[in-house]
Amino acid sequence: MADTLRFEVSEYHERLRKTKERMLREKVEVLIVSDPANMNYLTGYDGWSFYVHQGLVISLDYDEPIWFGRGMDANGAKLTTWLSGDNIRPYEDDYVQNVFKHPMSFVADIVREKGWDRRHIGVEMDNYWFTGKCLETLVEELPQAEFQDATSLVNWVRIVKSAREIEYIRQAARVCEHVMQTAVDSVEAGRLESEAAANVYHAVVRGVGELTGDHPAIFPIMPTNERTSAAHLGWQPDRKYERGDLVLLELCGVRYRYHCPLSRTAYIGDPPKELREIADAVVKGVEETLSFVRPGVTAEEVEARWRQAISGTRVVKPSRLGYAFGLNYVPDWGEHTISLRSGDKTILMPGMTIHLMPGIWLDEFGFECSEPILVTDGGCETLVSFPRRILMK
Amino acid sequence: MADTLRFEVSEYHERLRKTKERMLREKVEVLIVSDPANMNYLTGYDGWSFYVHQGLVISLDYDEPIWFGRGMDANGAKLTTWLSGDNIRPYEDDYVQNVFKHPMSFVADIVREKGWDRRHIGVEMDNYWFTGKCLETLVEELPQAEFQDATSLVNWVRIVKSAREIEYIRQAARVCEHVMQTAVDSVEAGRLESEAAANVYHAVVRGVGELTGDHPAIFPIMPTNERTSAAHLGWQPDRKYERGDLVLLELCGVRYRYHCPLSRTAYIGDPPKELREIADAVVKGVEETLSFVRPGVTAEEVEARWRQAISGTRVVKPSRLGYAFGLNYVPDWGEHTISLRSGDKTILMPGMTIHLMPGIWLDEFGFECSEPILVTDGGCETLVSFPRRILMK
Repeated sequence: MADTLRFEVSEYHERLRKTKERMLREKVEVLIVSDPANMNYLTGYDGWSFYVHQGLVISLDYDEPIWFGRGMDANGAKLTTWLSGDNIRPYEDDYVQNVFKHPMSFVADIVREKGWDRRHIGVEMDNYWFTGKCLETLVEELPQAEFQDATSLVNWVRIVKSAREIEYIRQAARVCEHVMQTAVDSVEAGRLESEAAANVYHAVVRGVGELTGDHPAIFPIMPTNERTSAAHLGWQPDRKYERGDLVLLELCGVRYRYHCPLSRTAYIGDPPKELREIADAVVKGVEETLSFVRPGVTAEEVEARWRQAISGTRVVKPSRLGYAFGLNYVPDWGEHTISLRSGDKTILMPGMTIHLMPGIWLDEFGFECSEPILVTDGGCETLVSFPRRILMK
Repeated sequence: MADTLRFEVSEYHERLRKTKERMLREKVEVLIVSDPANMNYLTGYDGWSFYVHQGLVISLDYDEPIWFGRGMDANGAKLTTWLSGDNIRPYEDDYVQNVFKHPMSFVADIVREKGWDRRHIGVEMDNYWFTGKCLETLVEELPQAEFQDATSLVNWVRIVKSAREIEYIRQAARVCEHVMQTAVDSVEAGRLESEAAANVYHAVVRGVGELTGDHPAIFPIMPTNERTSAAHLGWQPDRKYERGDLVLLELCGVRYRYHCPLSRTAYIGDPPKELREIADAVVKGVEETLSFVRPGVTAEEVEARWRQAISGTRVVKPSRLGYAFGLNYVPDWGEHTISLRSGDKTILMPGMTIHLMPGIWLDEFGFECSEPILVTDGGCETLVSFPRRILMK
């Protein structure tokens, strides 16, 4: 049994029960899980092995998930999961990046061996780690199975966090404050952008005091000036900050794979009037939206409230206002469930964690000031304490 | 035009010519590129936006690639690529993680608009960023097209590096030496593993002197003791190193997205005899293999030479001996082309960069001592200078 499990085994069992309940509701008899966050959530598995095909096979009538992966990672599964050895199924190394052999053929062998090959099989159809070739191979290998899309089935099980999960996210929030402060301290005229980014990475991984950190699911998004007009550009390695620089900081803290994201905007010098106006409107919009969030309202109602708050200002925000976050691996700390936007009918419940992220990317520049929140019984709690304004240097 | 291009525009044009030559040879009239490294290689595009669907559409009879991506990333494409504005095609935000709308429908619209919808369309079928849902959507939207697997088509164009690419990889090698030294210095009894990992991240991102670094495609693989029996486990955040610790260090330097990987093994104290024996056999095997590598030999012949060198020793190595590396994003610095293993008939050529990575993962512990190499006219050059032995602390 792994000594690195971050939760009681009973909590993993409970997660599995909820997954099977949802499988039944969605008429999925066998579920193939490819998402490493879902693998971790259900079994504890934790390693950087997702660059080759791996996953879990879960059947309604089989107690444990079956882990499959590359031979050299099987010891990793033994060391980091609560699964019994029989349910750790390594494949031989020549399945890796081989045009003649695909790991999903190995998975099909397991499915046939268990007698599950005529069942309704759910796959995470739009997950990064379930490629077109995975689908094609399974369909060819298991012609009598019925395949259906179960892309975010486990993600939706994850949507309400347990007490222990919230504890880790709160700890990640402490790390996040330290990370953001490190970034603000590091953005100084004359300093290499690389140096600031390196300091941020150090803070994310080291954490603060007894709260050690972890590797982040997204790199530090730290563009300057005209690059702030795009949402996902990084720092420029060889450039030094200058007076008059506008710097977006979309960062996070991480604790045992649980993220707490946060965005702020820094300015070296006196910010121009246009930026200050945008900042004022966004901060006011965030505050009005925060006071609206509570259990029972829907994701789209939250976004509508924000839209109302910014109407009549210069703020333009065609993209979603936010998304659920938590446990994750690269490339995203978002959970791919709730989106705060028109059409999302999700009713908010206590224990959900949402990144209220009003990123504004105009043609010439951008502005970000976000709040990661926990939906509580009576409203919502902002997880991070950091000034909501342009951070002037 | 972007001011951050790392290569002359003529080099991007040359890469595109080679890609089209290969498309023709493989009967691909239109190629949809999903791999962010391939996008960067062909256009310069550089951002952490691959967590939503994005890519390039390349047609044999159309001059430039067409970039498609999320609206908020279109400015990023303008700022980092050599493409003309007409060929930057953003989709609306509600295509993101929406069960009713998929970005590949938007791509199908482009394909129809250009009149390419009855052509042979190549897709990167087994690439992380081309999901089962991407395939399903395209097949449904474009019923008259013929789809075929073009998974590593562009990756194979990348296999021989240009002079400028080799320059960046050499620079990444200087950063890599600094990173490995930082790791060895940081692994000390009483220090948090998190602290060591944070120092490594700092070194990777900051680089050394004028050679600034970049974010790594794989996290620092730094397991200790029994965790070294698995290939892809990380550090343990809350643990402090102790005397008698065995630590694997699989790290890299990065320069403008070009990686140089390196593995070593550290030991705090006097290494046990069994580990020393394995180390001696591996190092001898590496040296014999290095003296064998030259243009004209095949990938499988290199592996066979290694196998011969370790026969009769206690070293067991069921997995591939190495792989091509270079430009990349998470989750892998490997290029998914050459594998040093039986069956790989690739003939080595000058300008190829290969990670000779004899990672040994036994049931109780592991040992790693690798060499990233450049195939030269007369043999091969080791890119990194770092002692090939157990690094004792």
